[in-house]
Amino acid sequence: MTFDRFQDHPAFGFVDWSLRGIGQVVFQNNPLSGLVILGAIFYNSWIYGFILAVGVVVGTATACLLKADRDLIRNGLFGFNGALVGVALVAFTSADFRSGSLPSVHLFVYIVCAAAMTSIVFSSISTLLGPHKVAALTMPFVLVGWLFLFAVLKFSSIDAGPLAKPVSPDQYQLVTTYVLPIWYMGIGNAIGQIFFQDNWIAGYLILVGIAIHSRIGAGMALVGAIVAELVAMSFGAPEGAIRDGLYGYNAALTGMALGGFFLVLTVRSFLYAVFGCVVSTWLWASVAIFLEPIGMPVFTSTFVIVTWAMLIGQHGFRALVPVPPAEATTPEDNRRRHLARRANLATLSSGRR
Amino acid sequence: MTFDRFQDHPAFGFVDWSLRGIGQVVFQNNPLSGLVILGAIFYNSWIYGFILAVGVVVGTATACLLKADRDLIRNGLFGFNGALVGVALVAFTSADFRSGSLPSVHLFVYIVCAAAMTSIVFSSISTLLGPHKVAALTMPFVLVGWLFLFAVLKFSSIDAGPLAKPVSPDQYQLVTTYVLPIWYMGIGNAIGQIFFQDNWIAGYLILVGIAIHSRIGAGMALVGAIVAELVAMSFGAPEGAIRDGLYGYNAALTGMALGGFFLVLTVRSFLYAVFGCVVSTWLWASVAIFLEPIGMPVFTSTFVIVTWAMLIGQHGFRALVPVPPAEATTPEDNRRRHLARRANLATLSSGRR
Amino acid sequence: MTFDRFQDHPAFGFVDWSLRGIGQVVFQNNPLSGLVILGAIFYNSWIYGFILAVGVVVGTATACLLKADRDLIRNGLFGFNGALVGVALVAFTSADFRSGSLPSVHLFVYIVCAAAMTSIVFSSISTLLGPHKVAALTMPFVLVGWLFLFAVLKFSSIDAGPLAKPVSPDQYQLVTTYVLPIWYMGIGNAIGQIFFQDNWIAGYLILVGIAIHSRIGAGMALVGAIVAELVAMSFGAPEGAIRDGLYGYNAALTGMALGGFFLVLTVRSFLYAVFGCVVSTWLWASVAIFLEPIGMPVFTSTFVIVTWAMLIGQHGFRALVPVPPAEATTPEDNRRRHLARRANLATLSSGRR
Repeated sequence: MTFDRFQDHPAFGFVDWSLRGIGQVVFQNNPLSGLVILGAIFYNSWIYGFILAVGVVVGTATACLLKADRDLIRNGLFGFNGALVGVALVAFTSADFRSGSLPSVHLFVYIVCAAAMTSIVFSSISTLLGPHKVAALTMPFVLVGWLFLFAVLKFSSIDAGPLAKPVSPDQYQLVTTYVLPIWYMGIGNAIGQIFFQDNWIAGYLILVGIAIHSRIGAGMALVGAIVAELVAMSFGAPEGAIRDGLYGYNAALTGMALGGFFLVLTVRSFLYAVFGCVVSTWLWASVAIFLEPIGMPVFTSTFVIVTWAMLIGQHGFRALVPVPPAEATTPEDNRRRHLARRANLATLSSGRR
Repeated sequence: MTFDRFQDHPAFGFVDWSLRGIGQVVFQNNPLSGLVILGAIFYNSWIYGFILAVGVVVGTATACLLKADRDLIRNGLFGFNGALVGVALVAFTSADFRSGSLPSVHLFVYIVCAAAMTSIVFSSISTLLGPHKVAALTMPFVLVGWLFLFAVLKFSSIDAGPLAKPVSPDQYQLVTTYVLPIWYMGIGNAIGQIFFQDNWIAGYLILVGIAIHSRIGAGMALVGAIVAELVAMSFGAPEGAIRDGLYGYNAALTGMALGGFFLVLTVRSFLYAVFGCVVSTWLWASVAIFLEPIGMPVFTSTFVIVTWAMLIGQHGFRALVPVPPAEATTPEDNRRRHLARRANLATLSSGRR
Repeated sequence: MTFDRFQDHPAFGFVDWSLRGIGQVVFQNNPLSGLVILGAIFYNSWIYGFILAVGVVVGTATACLLKADRDLIRNGLFGFNGALVGVALVAFTSADFRSGSLPSVHLFVYIVCAAAMTSIVFSSISTLLGPHKVAALTMPFVLVGWLFLFAVLKFSSIDAGPLAKPVSPDQYQLVTTYVLPIWYMGIGNAIGQIFFQDNWIAGYLILVGIAIHSRIGAGMALVGAIVAELVAMSFGAPEGAIRDGLYGYNAALTGMALGGFFLVLTVRSFLYAVFGCVVSTWLWASVAIFLEPIGMPVFTSTFVIVTWAMLIGQHGFRALVPVPPAEATTPEDNRRRHLARRANLATLSSGRR
């Protein structure tokens, strides 16, 4: 289901781009998906919903002011990193991670600047990766998030408590008896944690938002979250961290990116994506333990590292069919275009005989 | 005021290139600027002056031995990282940061090798960044400085005391009553800290050296330092760190780089540069806190990170006019050439009508 | 002595490629070198020998499955990082570093995935470095090794003891009286440590494996190890760390890479390589101290960093003659081809006169 009525509307265009920006966090260039996801966040906490909207608007507006490429803006690509950085800075400076606290004026100014900075860093990383036909993904958010979160915890004008949320498997009790709720809560939370929402129902609402635009996308998010649970359980990870979705959110994003979005979905690319999900799950633990002494959360760094390595690396592998970022729409479309192109080539070559 | 008499002199050429190398730390390709700055360093401490000269000579000589591009050598571009690494290694191994101690023979050999290594790393980073038309800035110094400083603190033949200088806001008392001297001392020290000089008068002398070659350059250094003070104060940073110029030296460099040197100075690029100064100030605190557990100083890493992100990123923004590093001379010249080019284009297109 | 009989053999081809993979750790594209080195590892510990074979087979097989470039596979380039990551993960999770312990089923699965991941990361880094004609070296192993080792120490299903092996000069007693065995043991161990073998006799056997294919290669490995000892001693490094070969293994690899393999061997490139060995030695200490708080070993990161900087940097220096990775065979051949090409040019230009 696409929904392009307002993309070029003089008055509502900006709203459309911003909603697409929310959808782009999970690769959905669709304002309706964005709206449903925004609703899911509001369902959990209006503060997070509000700050998500502020972030996406600031990121998009910065790109407009700096006269960035209009197509990128219109597809929401300048908004999703700003949206995430806003929510992240509130989440990790709030006394209650689950619902968030309203930011002070100082913190609000700081968040606006951080969201603006993500648009500059997005342009920068896109330029660097351009020749390799790989997208910036959420790296602008991860980098700006880390750099800005560090300082925010130390300025006396920002009254941040200690991190209210465990961010590493070490901080959970090592309980390894797994009961049923770990499945439906863990999977829902994994989707929710992409947006820092510790609410498994919100997670399933986000999944609905994804499915509106792409069922394969939603399916691969589920595959990623399930693979992560299986890996985490069989390697004896703490039950609390699995149920909170921490092992799964990077894997869910990796599954979506590699399973049809940036690679044409085939049996081979599906297995490649599943391997990526397995590695993402282990590396979440790895990066979490690495960052713990300095008190930084992993964000979606593991997803970006694994997906970059596997997408840049596939240039050397003929077993996979890449989709350049500029052509990536939905797994369904990517596959249809690929099959059509192959059919064309077959006709051409049979015509030549 | 340019001063090109000795650049191709058979005997004094090397001296000219080395003095330009000192000037290039603050983007001034002018031997007289270099001489004034060298004088400012000697005014604070003859040891720092001596080691600055050794560093710039070693860096430049290494490039000559390896037959690097003659124009780069002649413009002092192989010297400024060596100069900084020399001063840094002495500053952070001296009992008294302010005046420095004469290095032992072992440390001296080590510094010479570090300065030589900066020339290799400069060539390396320049090659990598070449396609993006962005300069290496002081990154060779930052990387070689970090790597060499770590080891120097541990070899038993080098008798280094503990870091005598606080390098992070955490290490200052949280006093946030600001009195007048914070202004003139903080700004002077911010300029001085670019060369690790904890002496505000030396800072203003360095500013004079900059102004000899470019008044806009000197102005933007001031703008950077002032913006940094305002940001640090309004976010409640410790008074001592502000007065020591620690919040400001990265912002001063960012202001100079973005405000006219690598981007044609316009209202838009001025605002872009001011935004860069704000972000540099926050990120100094961020990186300082990040590096504190391992005892490393920030050096000019924040300036490089922010400037790289904003210069590589601007390739995607039509609101700004870049100046390729090979053409960047002074903000004044860059702007003049840009206006002349635009006037030419206008004449051409009106002629066509 | 080349040995190409089995490279295209239908049944033994894969074995040939895997043995070449072992040889490629030390730049020897020769199955006999690989076999001798494998024997040297088995001489020290059959567990390490077995896991080295598993790693190289998994890395190579992954590349075959993903349909990577056949020439790269046939020359063993997809195997050497897998081989190293296998041995590293066993070495740093074993109670006894010297001989290693057989991995559990969980750890074995984990090692297989890590070795497979190195092939993807190898392709990725090769793509990124392609335009600069620089090889990925052992960076895929270093990165995958770090990321996977972190997590392995924390999953409850993998019963890893604490690191049994000191990995930083800080962890050795500061004894600086050096006696004769430091020489023959230190040099042998430096070669052995390339493969994590704490056995100086195995080290000399590995050196024999290198010399089978290239005497200059073996010579430069010795030069690197000797330079490292001299530097470490004159800067007062702990005797135990020198004798264990820790200061030397990065220098030995740097010596081989810069001394004839990726740069045509001349007096200038020999001095350049020796400078690289000196810097590698210092930086081993630096990176070791940097990584110690998080308990990570240095692996061959110092070798990669220094060699990359010096190879990418030399593009700006006319004093050196690079050999593109695709043409690099042995120091002897590289030099022969270079002299032939120069003689040709001379004939041509004299013919023109």
